[in-house]
Amino acid sequence: MFIAMNRFKVLKEERDAFEALWLGRESHLDKNPGFIEFHMLRGPEREDHQLYSSHTIWASREAFEAWTRSESFRAAHRDAGENRNRRMTLGHPEFEGFEVIQKLENVAQKAAE
Amino acid sequence: MFIAMNRFKVLKEERDAFEALWLGRESHLDKNPGFIEFHMLRGPEREDHQLYSSHTIWASREAFEAWTRSESFRAAHRDAGENRNRRMTLGHPEFEGFEVIQKLENVAQKAAE
Repeated sequence: MFIAMNRFKVLKEERDAFEALWLGRESHLDKNPGFIEFHMLRGPEREDHQLYSSHTIWASREAFEAWTRSESFRAAHRDAGENRNRRMTLGHPEFEGFEVIQKLENVAQKAAE
Repeated sequence: MFIAMNRFKVLKEERDAFEALWLGRESHLDKNPGFIEFHMLRGPEREDHQLYSSHTIWASREAFEAWTRSESFRAAHRDAGENRNRRMTLGHPEFEGFEVIQKLENVAQKAAE
């Protein structure tokens, strides 16, 4: 499993607009082989921004990389409107990719979610 | 849902020891109400360290906070050996808590994992 994260430092006055943009978009992720789960996360508030992180779980790094070369990827980034994002955030989003080296789960609690 | 993350900047020569410490520990997480899932993640390699992130999914922020006040939390941190960690990393781990504001999933792919 592979987790792709993007960290966004969102200007505080742009938080509502940033959330509306993400929650209102048409996601193309579920058309992609190896896509497992996506979370949009609201993180801690800092002095000059609020941290957000998008967080996509893939079956493998290869599945993620195939997506970045797909038409679905281009469509998602066209829809998100890079210019609009740039005005809402301090700098560009910061990408970090992670390999899962251990997974533990509470099967009963997971089924209840 | 709430995701608690800790970011660790691990000295490159300590990577194997750091992974062995985590993978070999006795986890007490599954005894806790509201615990859903844990991942240990190996992130990007930087000039002077390799980034790791631990990443625990809870039913709510309240479930996470109850765990931090529990005997299970104290036992986990006693076992992890803070002093050992300090020598393996640049500085202390950096904690970030996130609220899940959107979740999308590929049910078929998830079942196959």
